[in-house]
Amino acid sequence: MELLKSKILTEGIIKGDDILKVDAFLNHQLDYELLNEMGKSFYETFKDQNITKILTIEASGIAIAIIAAQYFKVPTVFAKKMESKNLDGDTYNTEVFSFTKAKNYTVKVSKKFIHKDDRVLILDDFLAMGRAALGLIDICNQAEASVVGVGIAIEKTFQEGAGLLMEKGIPLKSLARISRFENGKPVFED
Amino acid sequence: MELLKSKILTEGIIKGDDILKVDAFLNHQLDYELLNEMGKSFYETFKDQNITKILTIEASGIAIAIIAAQYFKVPTVFAKKMESKNLDGDTYNTEVFSFTKAKNYTVKVSKKFIHKDDRVLILDDFLAMGRAALGLIDICNQAEASVVGVGIAIEKTFQEGAGLLMEKGIPLKSLARISRFENGKPVFED
Repeated sequence: MELLKSKILTEGIIKGDDILKVDAFLNHQLDYELLNEMGKSFYETFKDQNITKILTIEASGIAIAIIAAQYFKVPTVFAKKMESKNLDGDTYNTEVFSFTKAKNYTVKVSKKFIHKDDRVLILDDFLAMGRAALGLIDICNQAEASVVGVGIAIEKTFQEGAGLLMEKGIPLKSLARISRFENGKPVFED
Repeated sequence: MELLKSKILTEGIIKGDDILKVDAFLNHQLDYELLNEMGKSFYETFKDQNITKILTIEASGIAIAIIAAQYFKVPTVFAKKMESKNLDGDTYNTEVFSFTKAKNYTVKVSKKFIHKDDRVLILDDFLAMGRAALGLIDICNQAEASVVGVGIAIEKTFQEGAGLLMEKGIPLKSLARISRFENGKPVFED
């Protein structure tokens, strides 16, 4: 998606070898016009799939998911990280390893909000090692819901996430695919 | 707002004496139609205030804020809780006590995203003791930005948050105001 790539090039910040910060428009400050274009693009890809629910993970996935939900006209569910006093005991749980934070965390979704007959589209900001996406897929599997696809804003194609989804036969749509960083700039793959 | 009150009555769950769970439409599963009506309502109240930025706090505020941002046509910033490897050291910080979780946490906003000339609308899901709203106001004060108002989905009028905002002279718009719980049901105040 050209608008997203252009934002990454002009407002993204590279830290170290392979950390791309998109705090200016996706992860801290949010650009509603960009998010709308992203939502439309996910809708174009998955509109014929009879999606019944969008599933994402707090916090950075929420804005992407709820804006996309306006096009799909379905409820969004965001998975919660860690324990929360206000979340039911009656949840699907999975463990996810965060490479960014170098630790495991528990991801939970209330059993009330994902059902056997749901056709779920998983949306998230980044796909790198794929652990968050796999965790959300695991939760859908526990609920016996169908995962119709995964939509990602920014994929790092040099990491293993996309391959892990392909192994599972789950369609993936990434709006910007970064194959490497060169001279402090991301190089996109088409 | 009638739609929100009706959702609270039909899908909200009361836990203990005064905890209202709205996981079915606002805090875990998200109802995009409700959020749109809420966004419109905040816009009706604050549209003449030359808002330049919407500020909220992760995670539950994000969906409310980004949907409202579509009406105001301004960027949204969500404050982050705790430390994050991907967040600049160059942040405004404040300490917030969570009565729900019975602990303090640090709230951060990058200095890049709130400026002296910003006219900020703070949006959040709940106003009870008011600590999150006061934390966000403190961050705006540090940035010398103007807080034009606070918009809240659900206010518990029997707790001190609204009074604390009034003391500071900050306009408050709450879409549903709960004055007490009676026989396991919320009682609304107009």
